[in-house]
Amino acid sequence: MTTDRQIRITEVALRDGLQGHATLIPTEQKLELLSLLLAAGLSNLEATSFVSPKAVPQLADAEELISRARGLAGVRLSALAPNARGVERAIASGVHEVAVVLSATDTMNRKNVGMSLHQATVASEDVIRRAASHHVPSRAYISVAFECPFEGTVRPEVVVLLARQMLEAGATELVIADTIGAAGPAQVQELCGLLTESIPSDRIGLHLHDTRGLGLANAWAGISAGIRRFDSSAGGLGGCPFAPGAAGNLATEDLVLMAESGGYTTGVNLPALYDAVQFASQITGRELGGRSMSWAKTRRNAALVGSS
Amino acid sequence: MTTDRQIRITEVALRDGLQGHATLIPTEQKLELLSLLLAAGLSNLEATSFVSPKAVPQLADAEELISRARGLAGVRLSALAPNARGVERAIASGVHEVAVVLSATDTMNRKNVGMSLHQATVASEDVIRRAASHHVPSRAYISVAFECPFEGTVRPEVVVLLARQMLEAGATELVIADTIGAAGPAQVQELCGLLTESIPSDRIGLHLHDTRGLGLANAWAGISAGIRRFDSSAGGLGGCPFAPGAAGNLATEDLVLMAESGGYTTGVNLPALYDAVQFASQITGRELGGRSMSWAKTRRNAALVGSS
Repeated sequence: MTTDRQIRITEVALRDGLQGHATLIPTEQKLELLSLLLAAGLSNLEATSFVSPKAVPQLADAEELISRARGLAGVRLSALAPNARGVERAIASGVHEVAVVLSATDTMNRKNVGMSLHQATVASEDVIRRAASHHVPSRAYISVAFECPFEGTVRPEVVVLLARQMLEAGATELVIADTIGAAGPAQVQELCGLLTESIPSDRIGLHLHDTRGLGLANAWAGISAGIRRFDSSAGGLGGCPFAPGAAGNLATEDLVLMAESGGYTTGVNLPALYDAVQFASQITGRELGGRSMSWAKTRRNAALVGSS
Repeated sequence: MTTDRQIRITEVALRDGLQGHATLIPTEQKLELLSLLLAAGLSNLEATSFVSPKAVPQLADAEELISRARGLAGVRLSALAPNARGVERAIASGVHEVAVVLSATDTMNRKNVGMSLHQATVASEDVIRRAASHHVPSRAYISVAFECPFEGTVRPEVVVLLARQMLEAGATELVIADTIGAAGPAQVQELCGLLTESIPSDRIGLHLHDTRGLGLANAWAGISAGIRRFDSSAGGLGGCPFAPGAAGNLATEDLVLMAESGGYTTGVNLPALYDAVQFASQITGRELGGRSMSWAKTRRNAALVGSS
């Protein structure tokens, strides 16, 4: 069990957050959001995905975004690469890290990438090896690691097996994803406990969603189990449009508040992060901001009207 | 450390939830809400407070409410009693349990009840002893147990000391309250760990607020520390009116969802609880419902529009 008090956040608003946004955000605005996030101390950024521009038009500017952002002081850019073509494009653009997504169930892989679990595992290993051949580190996501919308509850042993295969292929980091926000803290505790039996905790990250309001409780269960790497999204960007108040991604500002209040450091400056969230709200036209932010705003409002 | 998987919830919507509500809710409607909560499996209810009707007009019907509700099958009613007169009124009305509130800091007691910490401690002991003399159990709240709005961070040792004094006076249960919602899970873990060194965990409850979105994470920290008793409020009723989205009380439905998903039992039926929350929304004219409820609603909505 680690006694390390430093939490490393990978900010995913630009990729996971914007990916499903209906109207195209100009590259200039993405770069400005990226700069604001970086200024808030979020230097690890999952910035885009090298998928087919036809499949995800929002991320068609992947090359331009990475090549223009990669020189910013202190930045560390990650991008998803679903296949051989994607990883070559990502590396040619100058990403610092490549990310690859493997779903934990056969059905989810078939629905998502048209491959069996075995085929998808081999394809992920190929991406990881290609990255390694260029000396580029890779983050391997195991998605639907707790609950699959098609197959139901996922056995933790399967996740451990897939995780070890990704590490053996050369992945530098694992990211265990509760893709549909269906996990509870007991499940997070169980899976993290099992993973850390055979994998060093500093190579494991958690990607949590706040769909049912359990995001922070799950993150705390992860921290308690020794996990120190987390994905999160500024303002919770990436929420389901059907769910006002039930955000999708775990909000970075909520994670930071909880971690710092517990004596952990994140390197994130909250007021600067609120500025970034404000800007993300502007460019997406969506009301954004985790619970801690509405609390912080309210305190300002309350102060203005003389209340406590 | 307990291995007990049963969580006991004390539902506080009727007291903590309604107490600050601006317009008077008729006793009939309170009784109907109480019946709905009871039907959802919430048999432990903090129903009212025997304070001066002038101080809190909303709870001026305390006698009537308790005497009409106390015969309902399976119900266990608790009521706050701030002083000797309050406890005599409460017991005469037929409450099953009396609750008394002691703040953990001198300034908070002075602001709240016009007494020093020492005076307030003696007054609380008096309430507990009077209840015991009638063979009525008592719950002793230690409020602002983590953070005081006037004195700042509260030393855990002070809370343990006050808790032990309340138990020695005859309190049957302690309730550690994060009154202003300022605790994080690390603080909850620390204080619960310290308390359970000398007090059996089954005599300790947690009263948490969700002001900054940390309510569930704090509850999970409590469960992890062996705590099995929690206060919560249906729909999060009792939130600060200045904070849309930043609810005050931890929502019962969120706590139930988290606990049950982790293999704990609460005895609460969620759809029936949603009905009670719906009714509470109606009679208060407020949009209520924890995160899990907006998720559940959204699932229904999403199903209606054919989305996943």
